Amino acid sequence: MSNLNTMMTPIIWKNDQLHLLDQRELPRSETWLEYDDAYAVADAIQTMVVRGAPAIGVTAVYGVVIAATNIWKEHTTEWQQHMDEPLTALANARPTAVNLFWAINRMKAVLNTLPSRISPKAALLEEAVLIHQQDIEANQQMGKYGSSLLAEQSHVLTHCNAGALATGGFGTALGVIRQGFMDGKIAHVFVDETRPWLQGSRLTAWELMKEEIPMTLQADVAAGALMASGQLDWIIVGADRIAANGDTANKIGTYSLAVLAKYHGVKVMVVAPCSTIDWSISDGTNIPIEQRHSFEVSSLNGVSIAPDNVAVSNPAFDVTPAALIDAIVTEAGVVMKPSTKTMNAIRLKEML
Amino acid sequence: MSNLNTMMTPIIWKNDQLHLLDQRELPRSETWLEYDDAYAVADAIQTMVVRGAPAIGVTAVYGVVIAATNIWKEHTTEWQQHMDEPLTALANARPTAVNLFWAINRMKAVLNTLPSRISPKAALLEEAVLIHQQDIEANQQMGKYGSSLLAEQSHVLTHCNAGALATGGFGTALGVIRQGFMDGKIAHVFVDETRPWLQGSRLTAWELMKEEIPMTLQADVAAGALMASGQLDWIIVGADRIAANGDTANKIGTYSLAVLAKYHGVKVMVVAPCSTIDWSISDGTNIPIEQRHSFEVSSLNGVSIAPDNVAVSNPAFDVTPAALIDAIVTEAGVVMKPSTKTMNAIRLKEML
Repeated sequence: MSNLNTMMTPIIWKNDQLHLLDQRELPRSETWLEYDDAYAVADAIQTMVVRGAPAIGVTAVYGVVIAATNIWKEHTTEWQQHMDEPLTALANARPTAVNLFWAINRMKAVLNTLPSRISPKAALLEEAVLIHQQDIEANQQMGKYGSSLLAEQSHVLTHCNAGALATGGFGTALGVIRQGFMDGKIAHVFVDETRPWLQGSRLTAWELMKEEIPMTLQADVAAGALMASGQLDWIIVGADRIAANGDTANKIGTYSLAVLAKYHGVKVMVVAPCSTIDWSISDGTNIPIEQRHSFEVSSLNGVSIAPDNVAVSNPAFDVTPAALIDAIVTEAGVVMKPSTKTMNAIRLKEML
Repeated sequence: MSNLNTMMTPIIWKNDQLHLLDQRELPRSETWLEYDDAYAVADAIQTMVVRGAPAIGVTAVYGVVIAATNIWKEHTTEWQQHMDEPLTALANARPTAVNLFWAINRMKAVLNTLPSRISPKAALLEEAVLIHQQDIEANQQMGKYGSSLLAEQSHVLTHCNAGALATGGFGTALGVIRQGFMDGKIAHVFVDETRPWLQGSRLTAWELMKEEIPMTLQADVAAGALMASGQLDWIIVGADRIAANGDTANKIGTYSLAVLAKYHGVKVMVVAPCSTIDWSISDGTNIPIEQRHSFEVSSLNGVSIAPDNVAVSNPAFDVTPAALIDAIVTEAGVVMKPSTKTMNAIRLKEML
């Protein structure tokens, strides 16, 4: 477990403040921003200072600690009556990843049991740190489960960043790749640059290069030709929301990769903690898909790369039907050939 | 034919010089560069001042005029003996588009018939202008053939730029879209931004907006979800080299689109002049695929967008098998369901 000591994490609680690694600035600079206001935390999630479904969940729980601490100072015994507004702001920061709502609900459950006469800070911070730690442990467990599915010296492709930077630490898809590399299962990682936000170039390449895992960066459009060349064994990605039947919302482009994988006999692995599963929706058609601002497509680093006033569509996610997914890896176990029926095994384990 | 008077063209011969619209600077500035040296023309092709298979063919023929004019001034009657070096430089500028070699060979055929005692300039310029004019006429013919394949109010997607900017004028894929829009066949055009060089954002969006054809720009990775939504009727693209069986090399990502199209029941149209067909190769496996410099992926506008020294794969083209193409549109006619057999009809027409 030596890697835990040097674990890369984008979220640190220190000196009564939340510290976030500003992922908008990577890899050019490693800038940490400090937060002591819940609305600023919501804004950090919305503007993608921090991104990745599990990471925004973990960030939000610290946001709840900050909100309660500040409101207690102002309102003391009536603090609970003033929590709705910051909780709503945090929940509304982004619409697709369900981990955000799950994490806030876990904090609410604790919050509702607290006495009104004493400061809620210690109890809420304890729960927040627990959620953060459990996320890292879940990632390590998923790493082992996912690695066990790979043959020796596999060639894999990942899309977006589902790494340490997208989670409390270690990563989901990159957790499997980290563990797989340690186990001799991974020979080479192809990294989609992941337009428009370039999570692949900026974040995944950065993480893999730090750990000296052999990798090649490529434009997203090169994936088809790569698969046609016969070099690829698995596509390994994270998830932002998984429906009860295994349909998976993930970064825009994941669906295209899954269709291409099916055509070429390449396997598809989705790696995500149980907190990513939304049991309340039966299939992916009901997952809300965030449309983000046009400038993410039409400019880069503040420089326009398209004609002024160009019409842009910028969906941040797409939905991959369960039928195109070979394995969903969670900390509670692996679901092969996901369907409503096979997913239920995870649900039962979760309830125990 | 009123559009001919205002025709957008990236290649102009004027005052004994070749003028090229610098496509690296679009859409931010419309800068024209002037050439009176054949090696500088080869460099302009290599560095993508001008790009697009037909456009680099037309550019190269003016390069041959420049080479012969300059060499005549120096060597007079022995000019033909000194033409190999500049012709080779022009031919080696880029490897995949066959139009380049075709165009140079047409010039060579004239060159070899010229007397050594008089300046070759007038005769070669006449042939160069003829090639340029024939390219525009071929595009207009393809526009009509392609438009006739579309149902009223179709929604189409195009990848890269196969427009006026990629040809002598009017365009191949965008020629069909221009003509289709005039004919009421095109309701909306989705434009892939086309990483890494962003021909879609920078060039195709610019051309379509100038002509007020309704369009939406999107990241390349959004194409799968767009097709799944059922909004798309056709994918319309150009080509850099077509093998005798209809296998087509085009901008990297075309193959992925064709696989996705097959899966979703969307049709695929390739639009290219006969000069793009390489009858000497039986199928696409023998088409050389250019690998371009890593900085096209790892930086943009000179700003790094990936870690320093990241390993990059940057193939500029991929090959789409004929079986994934519904129609190849040339100026000599349309080949439905391309194969060695159906392609032969075009070959026979070309020979007449």
